[in-house]
Amino acid sequence: MRIRLIWEGRTKNTQLRALEEDYTARLKHFAELVVEEIRPASKQAAREAVHRNERITAPERRLLEKVKHGYKVFLDASGRHWTSEEFSAWLGEQALRGRQELVFLVGAPGGFSAAFKQQADLLLALSRMTLTRDWARALLLEQIYRGFTILRGYPYAK
Amino acid sequence: MRIRLIWEGRTKNTQLRALEEDYTARLKHFAELVVEEIRPASKQAAREAVHRNERITAPERRLLEKVKHGYKVFLDASGRHWTSEEFSAWLGEQALRGRQELVFLVGAPGGFSAAFKQQADLLLALSRMTLTRDWARALLLEQIYRGFTILRGYPYAK
Repeated sequence: MRIRLIWEGRTKNTQLRALEEDYTARLKHFAELVVEEIRPASKQAAREAVHRNERITAPERRLLEKVKHGYKVFLDASGRHWTSEEFSAWLGEQALRGRQELVFLVGAPGGFSAAFKQQADLLLALSRMTLTRDWARALLLEQIYRGFTILRGYPYAK
Repeated sequence: MRIRLIWEGRTKNTQLRALEEDYTARLKHFAELVVEEIRPASKQAAREAVHRNERITAPERRLLEKVKHGYKVFLDASGRHWTSEEFSAWLGEQALRGRQELVFLVGAPGGFSAAFKQQADLLLALSRMTLTRDWARALLLEQIYRGFTILRGYPYAK
């Protein structure tokens, strides 16, 4: 099962970037992992995308085309608030079903437009609290890693 | 308003420790901040404390004595799941009421015993997902910082 993580631009916070790299390296023991830092939409375009909810923008359409063969998980505050055990069970289920590719999309803090969110197979929330995009990326990687350690009964620091 | 953060032992993960230090430094613009790394309970004692729920242990009693003048917030998965805005509003309310001291206690991932939890003025959860103690410390500091930036209308990275 391949796991693709897609987000806009490079993670700016040095420590969170280091955490990201650390968990990316650890995760490679469990899954084929691809992190794709796509070109950020202009601020203007991002603002418009959130407010203009009725239809998908051209960059969003191109992004959906890129991930059309995967199961699409968008990180969004309006999504499911799972425990790590629930998330891990879901990961295991995907592997059991022979899912080829999981795609995780981390957006801007403003979130995704309603029209774009409708394209997700799953909306997932990490916390009710607001996380910067850098925190969300690092924590998502940590939780995917934790999910696999739970599935495999692998020891993991508490 | 003084903010005391109390936890057992030094944060081990280098990056999360650096994040902790970064947010500690930033928070000093907003509040008097004290981080106290207390001596960890023995593993045996910690295990016993969680299972023996009927009464408070001697180290817990000493800890409660140390913080008896403060408003006690224990981080616990069974606590309130607030948004950052709700947490920020609560912080502002504490300051308005002239609260002298807020004490945040971050425990082991096993959590606190039921008897000890009853001593809290507030139980607070950062996420339904399990966080290592190192992650919980860094994220708590980040959310306190975010809370103050919301209260003061201070610009903060997204």
